[in-house]
Amino acid sequence: MIRIGILGYGNLGRGVESAIKQNDDMKLVAVFSRRDPSTVKIQTSDVAVYGIDALETMQDAIDVLILCGGSATDLPVQTPQYAAKYNVVDSFDTHARIPEHFANVDAAAKKAGKIGIISCGWDPGMFSLNRLYANCVLPEGKDYTFWGKGVSQGHSDAVRRIEGVKDCRQYTIPVDAAMEAVRAGKNPELTTREKHVRECFVVAKEGADLGKIEEAIKTMPNYFADYDTTVHFITEEEMKRDHSGLPHGGSVIRTGKTGLNGENTHVIEYKLTLDSNPEFTGSVIVAYARAAYRMNREGMSGCKTVFDIAPAYLSAQSGEELRAHLL
Amino acid sequence: MIRIGILGYGNLGRGVESAIKQNDDMKLVAVFSRRDPSTVKIQTSDVAVYGIDALETMQDAIDVLILCGGSATDLPVQTPQYAAKYNVVDSFDTHARIPEHFANVDAAAKKAGKIGIISCGWDPGMFSLNRLYANCVLPEGKDYTFWGKGVSQGHSDAVRRIEGVKDCRQYTIPVDAAMEAVRAGKNPELTTREKHVRECFVVAKEGADLGKIEEAIKTMPNYFADYDTTVHFITEEEMKRDHSGLPHGGSVIRTGKTGLNGENTHVIEYKLTLDSNPEFTGSVIVAYARAAYRMNREGMSGCKTVFDIAPAYLSAQSGEELRAHLL
Repeated sequence: MIRIGILGYGNLGRGVESAIKQNDDMKLVAVFSRRDPSTVKIQTSDVAVYGIDALETMQDAIDVLILCGGSATDLPVQTPQYAAKYNVVDSFDTHARIPEHFANVDAAAKKAGKIGIISCGWDPGMFSLNRLYANCVLPEGKDYTFWGKGVSQGHSDAVRRIEGVKDCRQYTIPVDAAMEAVRAGKNPELTTREKHVRECFVVAKEGADLGKIEEAIKTMPNYFADYDTTVHFITEEEMKRDHSGLPHGGSVIRTGKTGLNGENTHVIEYKLTLDSNPEFTGSVIVAYARAAYRMNREGMSGCKTVFDIAPAYLSAQSGEELRAHLL
Repeated sequence: MIRIGILGYGNLGRGVESAIKQNDDMKLVAVFSRRDPSTVKIQTSDVAVYGIDALETMQDAIDVLILCGGSATDLPVQTPQYAAKYNVVDSFDTHARIPEHFANVDAAAKKAGKIGIISCGWDPGMFSLNRLYANCVLPEGKDYTFWGKGVSQGHSDAVRRIEGVKDCRQYTIPVDAAMEAVRAGKNPELTTREKHVRECFVVAKEGADLGKIEEAIKTMPNYFADYDTTVHFITEEEMKRDHSGLPHGGSVIRTGKTGLNGENTHVIEYKLTLDSNPEFTGSVIVAYARAAYRMNREGMSGCKTVFDIAPAYLSAQSGEELRAHLL
């Protein structure tokens, strides 16, 4: 049994927790939180919740520690810190800071003889893998990534910070016509506005100026100004009833040419349609936790990404079984 | 420069040849054939064609030998034979014989300190990879593979062997309704007949009994009897004009559930739409030839499949570049 610890118990921590239950070779040992452990109620009744300090002394009880904190401030500190004591997996997704994060985790993990897998999930993660494979197979081509339809937590949070907004759910929606042109091998040059639209469902505070809120959303730089955005004002009851899920997904598409004169066109598409973003992300992370455990048992150490990990390490099946059933 | 040799110069050999030209770190050194080399005209003007015996003494000139023979009789002999002298890549696709082929290639390659990559292409190959990743991420789910629309060489050949048939092109076509039910997460149980239909374009010999040919096709065991098959009789001119390409493709789909009570559904789809089956297969093989070269340079040896190869080995870019641009 691979013994797993979870640090951080938000949506992603819960997703990891439920994913572990689907894998017979794994066991959740404990959840760790910065909150007072007595206030954290988890879904698995027979598993303990500890304060974060307990991680100082639990190396003998945990094979892989899964870090479920945020990329902005938690993971840049936590992943190197705990890679010095545990095999770790995180879902660090601040693209610009990946080189620095990789270097920090690599140094700590190598020194400790541990494996640290970073940037694991679906983007970065499964989408990255598919970009890499498709680029290697079709060197002369063009990449497209479409996201959605799905809830963007970052955009929802940004709207919530606007004066007069009580709650918001923001959906990112790919533009069908753009996707169809890409799938047809037309290699369109697409602006930000042509690829995705944004739709916001907003609960306003009593007496708030709705026109002002809508204006503040639509003109918000980086988040909304470059997109066609629709704003709907709804009640708290409607929010709860219609928008409590966290669906997401999208497509990675690469189109390319082969032949001596580029006469043949090929389209590779990897598409995800996810009812629950955190549960799917948790499922990917748990598969890579198995890889971290197995690679470390073979004597490997240091920081790894999905690019560095042979697919067979993700599976509980032997090489013989995989070749017989999945090849 | 990675120096490549090609053994066997049919459709696949030509596909590999044109793929090499798209990769700046590779160079085609020679094509080897069992035919009289003076009769083999290749597409690359400055490259030599040799008889197969020349392979006995060209180890210093070739880094990876790509084997483009057939799975029925060529590769079971050739891959172990040449893995004893070269890093090799093949596209062996007789699923039932993969364990035996793997063992033979593994023994020869290990003894020689070489890498032998088998069963490389899109199915087996990229489709297998996607089955594996999706199974690891969604352990509670169901796999579907649809092929087509595309030309099946095996089925076309089978029809050509019927008395009175001069030429045939057989298309395998997935049933839209079945794919849509799968994509909608309905987890249908599908019979062979419900998943694919077959369409044959046949040029008959003068005076042949068309009714008899059609009957012979539709009742042919294994190949057609379990499918709804349409037969069209066409002229040689129509065959040449409308059916000279070798398009193919298909989708690997896995649907699965997550959550404590399996309350959330996810759909993972990997879809290929290929104008040229042999050129795409050749492109996959060439990317794995790079992996064979790099893994062997790091001291690895033995038989490998796509499952055993970390994705980064397929790319000419460094780890830093991949993390910066594709992660």
